[in-house]
Amino acid sequence: MGLKSFVEVHPDSHFPIQNLPYGVFRPEPGSEPRPGVAIGDYVLDLSAIASAGLFDGPILRRSDCFHQPNLNKLLGMGRPAWTEARATIQKILSSTEPTLRDNASWRQKALVPMDKAEMLLPVAIGDYTDFFTSMHHTKNCGIIFRGPDTPIPPNWFHLPIAYHGRASSVVVSGTDIVRPRGQGHPTGNSPPYFGPSLKLDFELEMAVIVGPGNELGKSIDVNEAADHIFGLVLMNDWSARDIQAWEYIPLGPFLGKSFGTTISPWIVTLDALEPFACDAPKQNPLPLPYLTEKVSKIYDISLEVRIKPAGEEQAHVVTRSNLKHLYWTLTQQLAHHTINGCNLRPGDLLGTGTISGPEPESYGCLLELTWNGQKLLSLGGTTRKFLEDGDEVIISGFSKGNGYNVGFGACSGKILPSL
Amino acid sequence: MGLKSFVEVHPDSHFPIQNLPYGVFRPEPGSEPRPGVAIGDYVLDLSAIASAGLFDGPILRRSDCFHQPNLNKLLGMGRPAWTEARATIQKILSSTEPTLRDNASWRQKALVPMDKAEMLLPVAIGDYTDFFTSMHHTKNCGIIFRGPDTPIPPNWFHLPIAYHGRASSVVVSGTDIVRPRGQGHPTGNSPPYFGPSLKLDFELEMAVIVGPGNELGKSIDVNEAADHIFGLVLMNDWSARDIQAWEYIPLGPFLGKSFGTTISPWIVTLDALEPFACDAPKQNPLPLPYLTEKVSKIYDISLEVRIKPAGEEQAHVVTRSNLKHLYWTLTQQLAHHTINGCNLRPGDLLGTGTISGPEPESYGCLLELTWNGQKLLSLGGTTRKFLEDGDEVIISGFSKGNGYNVGFGACSGKILPSL
Ligand SMILES: [Ca+2]
Ligand SMILES: [Ca+2]
Ligand SMILES: [Mg+2]
Ligand SMILES: [Mg+2]
Ligand code: NI
Repeated sequence: MGLKSFVEVHPDSHFPIQNLPYGVFRPEPGSEPRPGVAIGDYVLDLSAIASAGLFDGPILRRSDCFHQPNLNKLLGMGRPAWTEARATIQKILSSTEPTLRDNASWRQKALVPMDKAEMLLPVAIGDYTDFFTSMHHTKNCGIIFRGPDTPIPPNWFHLPIAYHGRASSVVVSGTDIVRPRGQGHPTGNSPPYFGPSLKLDFELEMAVIVGPGNELGKSIDVNEAADHIFGLVLMNDWSARDIQAWEYIPLGPFLGKSFGTTISPWIVTLDALEPFACDAPKQNPLPLPYLTEKVSKIYDISLEVRIKPAGEEQAHVVTRSNLKHLYWTLTQQLAHHTINGCNLRPGDLLGTGTISGPEPESYGCLLELTWNGQKLLSLGGTTRKFLEDGDEVIISGFSKGNGYNVGFGACSGKILPSL
Repeated sequence: MGLKSFVEVHPDSHFPIQNLPYGVFRPEPGSEPRPGVAIGDYVLDLSAIASAGLFDGPILRRSDCFHQPNLNKLLGMGRPAWTEARATIQKILSSTEPTLRDNASWRQKALVPMDKAEMLLPVAIGDYTDFFTSMHHTKNCGIIFRGPDTPIPPNWFHLPIAYHGRASSVVVSGTDIVRPRGQGHPTGNSPPYFGPSLKLDFELEMAVIVGPGNELGKSIDVNEAADHIFGLVLMNDWSARDIQAWEYIPLGPFLGKSFGTTISPWIVTLDALEPFACDAPKQNPLPLPYLTEKVSKIYDISLEVRIKPAGEEQAHVVTRSNLKHLYWTLTQQLAHHTINGCNLRPGDLLGTGTISGPEPESYGCLLELTWNGQKLLSLGGTTRKFLEDGDEVIISGFSKGNGYNVGFGACSGKILPSL
């Protein structure tokens, strides 16, 4: 594995010096939010590193991008700034570099124990878009919601389908989610159901965090799209299936989704993920020229969802999937988003859609795992059709390197009862 | 009409002292954006009024809400602040009040000729939602897109249908709109169409500008919803019908909408519109209790769309409609939006959906007016099925009072060719 930090990092850690994911945190209650990177069980305070003058490269030397309450400014600066930041941080943290290693006062200021840090949303999200790019998820939802005839609509193989999501209700991992109230299908001649959702679900997703955006009216070329992607987060697109099924015709999901979306506090950069790039699935029919890539790749990231019922010690694995199951690549999603001239901005969030694999054990939501409540899912001593109050849903994900992991930590949230 | 300003206001003006709509402007190129209100042919610079110490009420005396580049801070302060601001501004501008009237230096600083002012987006829009609340529009679209069987889906009469829109591409009146490129339905066994949209359309809408928001997980009661509405703007939800028709199954409109949405620079407050309140249409079936209002009202606002083809002097009226044609009220829309706990924030934009009336001359978009291009619409010497490059679409709206108008000015945009 070569590169090693003077900060001790357990071999199972998600956060070795090869990773260096970005987040925003408070080192103690009431202090100012600031950017940091994870290293082992610590958060490196980038505002402290900047104040110490250690960002000495030509781009970052005079920038105030690390004295900000979010990462948006850094994201807007683009790949040259990100490359310089990564090189500087890797050097500072390396076991052979004395600058920080041998300066107890700087270390004391800059390395905050992770269990003391309060993690916040890493970015101010201007717009959140959710795609629908797993063929297995699309097919399963189609059969469940619309029946077995052409469960995958004909447009699906020609473009990465997506809908606009709600930015205001995106929250960071650890934030409780209140069970939404809403309407569901009427039975017979009664009025519609109204009350707490009876079909509350999670959706296992990942999401792109956008770097530099584009001007309104201009498009981003699919072969340059990677330069507009800063990194990835884990995402849980909480979904109320009864609300969604009743409201979504003809304009798509709205209140069945907008009550909350959870993302991981750590953004893992494309640079850190590069060793885990693999060929994207073959696409048939061939995509239109604006979606045809010179190199079509995805990342091998193992994903897992666990549920911890109220009062239990133990969380139970309910599915295992992988980002590489997606049909459309992240760069195709981003290029498609702008082909009409729609402007992206730094910090925008582009969800992949539920990441279901081909086997039932790899389905990415309860709708599929219990086939809309027709089957029971076992959680050790108990069972679930949909989520119950007190359930905590924990998504985790990582890529396995040679002697190290590049991981995302966790993306978790607990269901509180309706008001 | 009683109240009168020392600023001369033509009887046909949209901006008498009874109106006082809010906007954000630059008095000259390069100067700082600041809030203002329209009065006749002038913009009153509220930052100048605040600097002169004329906001002397208990709430606004020490606030910096008029020294901001947008109205979001004022919006978040709520109705007591808005009432105080309106009373102060009406007093300052009144013909009987000497403070500003007789101070040439203050007048010079505070009254900017409207034709010198550059109008900007009045708010930073966190999220934009578009509803679908005209029954006539819903029915017409249903017949055109899905055929004559149940053109209005069964959920429509139980809840105000909506979708999340794109906030980044909302622009202020006067901004050119580039014709979007995208995919359209394949013909036979060919690949999908790709190129400039061949069915570019406008949508005549109005939109709520949200005042104080709500906490994530809490709902806003329908009978308190009006206190969360600062005012209304005119809106053109530009739509590419070919892109929309091909992409919208199953998750709703996306790139067919997100290339641009235009709003008027002036936000007319609910206070100014109160004299034009009228009974909302009877609803059958009765709405669920959370949508049942003690008083159910809408506003009588006359709306008009004109199209000015490239090179012509004359704009031609293509439709005349009225806000009062909507089935769901603005307060029902807002309450429904939060029933699942979704948090609104000051400055959020809630479009009403296309405001079509019952008669063909009152349809709110070309899709309906030309029945998806099956009929030609006359524009004086020329005709249209959909918008052509160079067409300027101008929406205007006002309410007629006794000897004065309360108006919105215009919401316009011109189509530029695809890149
Ligand atoms: Ca989703
Ligand atoms: Ca619309
Ligand atoms: Mg969600
Ligand atoms: Mg639009
Ligand atoms: Ni949004």
